[in-house]
Amino acid sequence: MTTILLASRNAKKLGELRRILGPAVPELEVIGLDDLASIGLAPYEEVPESGASFADNALLKARAGFKHTGLPTVADDSGLTVDALNGMPGVLSARWCGRHGDDRANNDLLLAQLADVPDERLTAAFRASVAYVDGERELVVDGEMPGSLIREPRGEHGFGYDPLFVPAGRRQTSAELDPAEKDAISHRGQALRLLADLLAR
Amino acid sequence: MTTILLASRNAKKLGELRRILGPAVPELEVIGLDDLASIGLAPYEEVPESGASFADNALLKARAGFKHTGLPTVADDSGLTVDALNGMPGVLSARWCGRHGDDRANNDLLLAQLADVPDERLTAAFRASVAYVDGERELVVDGEMPGSLIREPRGEHGFGYDPLFVPAGRRQTSAELDPAEKDAISHRGQALRLLADLLAR
Repeated sequence: MTTILLASRNAKKLGELRRILGPAVPELEVIGLDDLASIGLAPYEEVPESGASFADNALLKARAGFKHTGLPTVADDSGLTVDALNGMPGVLSARWCGRHGDDRANNDLLLAQLADVPDERLTAAFRASVAYVDGERELVVDGEMPGSLIREPRGEHGFGYDPLFVPAGRRQTSAELDPAEKDAISHRGQALRLLADLLAR
Repeated sequence: MTTILLASRNAKKLGELRRILGPAVPELEVIGLDDLASIGLAPYEEVPESGASFADNALLKARAGFKHTGLPTVADDSGLTVDALNGMPGVLSARWCGRHGDDRANNDLLLAQLADVPDERLTAAFRASVAYVDGERELVVDGEMPGSLIREPRGEHGFGYDPLFVPAGRRQTSAELDPAEKDAISHRGQALRLLADLLAR
């Protein structure tokens, strides 16, 4: 049995990691930050996401997880990079409006900032970095989903900026794609599959 | 007598342009957008600042002024570029919070976005581009004032992000410097002096 910590409290991310790493790592058990007590480990204080890049933040979180638990640890950071904003909101995606996790306010602010930017310059990408730290190796893999923004939110799936983002070659927003379809092309899905390939070697 | 249009309604900018271009251009008259009627010219609809750079926007505005009035036209665009925001707010400085010209809201949003960014990464610069268009020449000159941000506004002079910005080598914020001292080192002052040099040749 291999136990891996995902340094996150997000049940959806735990499920995604189990689905994608499962075939690559025999007898895999993936636990999250909320499961530490159940295997007799103490909770620890999470590090602030103060890095300058998704990769920095993913590594910070994976190193902290390994340091405090001794378990091989996976961590991710991801966000939306808008070309007309020089790649921001980027690492600040979840707190672009100044508060953490207020999707509605983040979307409203982004649209207002881009009001005078011509449609043809509304190109953007979702990007993710996933880090893996086990005391012997530090791996960092990236994924990217290019596309463009629309000016009116559409769709009920997903979260964050999904209702404003149309992946390249699609007509639906990320929030209109069904979750399996989004997983197949998503930035985090790509990064996790790359990690699975590396761990299977 | 040489009449030059400054494509702006800002009296402070008009005064600054007169002071700096005056010695370079004999018998100079500088008028602003609000003075067009007084010399028998019709007002025109200003172009939106939709460019991707300060230089783009300055040129857009200077070309529009020359096209509509036939007068040699000067226009500027400027803003704050924050390294931890990949150079944003940049061309969106005046409307970073989603509304145009709300200095308080722009400052509050910027500070909230930077809350987890370590102090040593709070480097920034004020940048300006000034364009001149007279039907024969198109000139664009740039100025830069490097420095860093603080987390509590200080000072009553200036406008915009001045209370949060400490020019390199100073202890006072741009809003604590007296106006003459700020003019001497400011991004726009530098750009205007470069333009004066070019026009004097």
